[in-house]
Amino acid sequence: MSYELTILGSSSAIPSLEKNPTAQLLNANERFFLIDCAEGTQIQLRKYKFKFHKINRIFISHLHGDHYFGLIGLLSSMHLLGREKELHIYAHAKLKQIIDVQLEASNTELCYPLFFHVINPETDEVLFEDKKIKISTFPLNHGIDCNGFLFEEKKSPRKIISEKIQEYNIPIENLKSIKNGEHFITEDGDVILNNELTIENNKASSYAYCSDTKYCESIIEKIKGVSLLYHEATFMNDRKNRAEETNHSTTIDAATIAKLAQVKHLLIGHFSQRYRDESLLLEESKRVFKNTLIAKQGRTINFSDM
Amino acid sequence: MSYELTILGSSSAIPSLEKNPTAQLLNANERFFLIDCAEGTQIQLRKYKFKFHKINRIFISHLHGDHYFGLIGLLSSMHLLGREKELHIYAHAKLKQIIDVQLEASNTELCYPLFFHVINPETDEVLFEDKKIKISTFPLNHGIDCNGFLFEEKKSPRKIISEKIQEYNIPIENLKSIKNGEHFITEDGDVILNNELTIENNKASSYAYCSDTKYCESIIEKIKGVSLLYHEATFMNDRKNRAEETNHSTTIDAATIAKLAQVKHLLIGHFSQRYRDESLLLEESKRVFKNTLIAKQGRTINFSDM
Repeated sequence: MSYELTILGSSSAIPSLEKNPTAQLLNANERFFLIDCAEGTQIQLRKYKFKFHKINRIFISHLHGDHYFGLIGLLSSMHLLGREKELHIYAHAKLKQIIDVQLEASNTELCYPLFFHVINPETDEVLFEDKKIKISTFPLNHGIDCNGFLFEEKKSPRKIISEKIQEYNIPIENLKSIKNGEHFITEDGDVILNNELTIENNKASSYAYCSDTKYCESIIEKIKGVSLLYHEATFMNDRKNRAEETNHSTTIDAATIAKLAQVKHLLIGHFSQRYRDESLLLEESKRVFKNTLIAKQGRTINFSDM
Repeated sequence: MSYELTILGSSSAIPSLEKNPTAQLLNANERFFLIDCAEGTQIQLRKYKFKFHKINRIFISHLHGDHYFGLIGLLSSMHLLGREKELHIYAHAKLKQIIDVQLEASNTELCYPLFFHVINPETDEVLFEDKKIKISTFPLNHGIDCNGFLFEEKKSPRKIISEKIQEYNIPIENLKSIKNGEHFITEDGDVILNNELTIENNKASSYAYCSDTKYCESIIEKIKGVSLLYHEATFMNDRKNRAEETNHSTTIDAATIAKLAQVKHLLIGHFSQRYRDESLLLEESKRVFKNTLIAKQGRTINFSDM
């Protein structure tokens, strides 16, 4: 069980033969979340051997084409493949109209239930929550409605040593409270200290996705201390003006946000096509925030133990 | 100068790693016409080294996703690349709404003039005509509004032997009438017979595109005698019932239309993904119409001299 992120595409604006625009797949303990869905994403999913039917929730950050033009094709292929399971999309309101008008044009009634959850671009909100994960969204600053996403694993603070369950004949109904730090009292009335039964659990994983945005300190509180932060870095620092004009960030912007938010690792991508040598962007970011990685297409990052 | 068709994609329904859904590029004497535009078409254009800016007219046969989901991405890339030239799209009315809602969502005003020409799905009509080419459309039979396209080169019946122009000092303004068979009278009043000045021109090229459709004899008159007919052949003949249910054709349907229309060559494609061995479809078609070719992705067919 782990949290793994696969970069399906990470270039900005125009697809090329080698590089797809933005799409990422988060495998959160074998639950698959698709984040953004540029043209060609369904082919990227096939290339990296992910099954469409395992994806149950799709998150679209904003309605620039390089972040969603592949969605209608993926929805359509899921239909043609006979999907029956629910699919949930989280996006800004206009995307529903875009999907509906295309389904209507082809006279298609999807063979699976599609639930569209409208994101409010003005405020933070929780989009989905259960025992294992909490997914929330927060506004970015990109000229048009644009949101980031935060995926937070939920974990008990302590992990039970499995041999102890047998040794003390611990009933299932007690396990939850023990994981939360309580002691165990045997049938004979002996108190077994929690320390003897458990060890500290791995830290829960968390992933924050921030694309696209200009430098925006209001997100820092939201993403504080995450295991992994993806933050776009379209330009290098010498093009700071261009970044501001186009509502994008520089490597230094991304790294500064990572530093201020005290995240564990920073992942940068969405580089302008002017940059042939991505290592220059990496170096520049590392000067401000050492634990920077590049969101290279095809790369999978396991950040459970980071 | 020639008529050349390049198959950018030819599979049906769902894109795969190896095969793109339908898109074709017709090079008509260095004028480029894009016919259908499935997801990934802009990448296919790059792969086969066609410049986006050379395409001035795009024809969309119908609004099933495997024939147009790549259009919005291509339009968007043309915008990002700073296109200034006019672009003309010929398609059914609903596509305009689909394009508009997506441009609106991203707050995009295209930097080039986009002209949308609505196709009437009920009747034949001429879509474009000038001195060199005539492009018309005609209804197919596919469950939703679906049209075929016919591209007809215009050529003078005769070609002037270039040495004769100098020899008799023929003024430019006389060339057209000579190409059309008239004699030339010199300044001295000598009559030079057309036979001496010209040779018979190559036959004008013509291309008919029929995808998708069930067997439909009403198109025969329209496409009579064309140099090259593309006709979908989704199924083999043993699945004739399935073809009818899904408003598609079999190899035998396509070949029968080709035969009745006395076309020179037939190109079949849009094969169902159930077929691994395309040579079986080719063989079946050839039994009815010998000059059958397969619309293999990446194939370029020069049919000027066919």
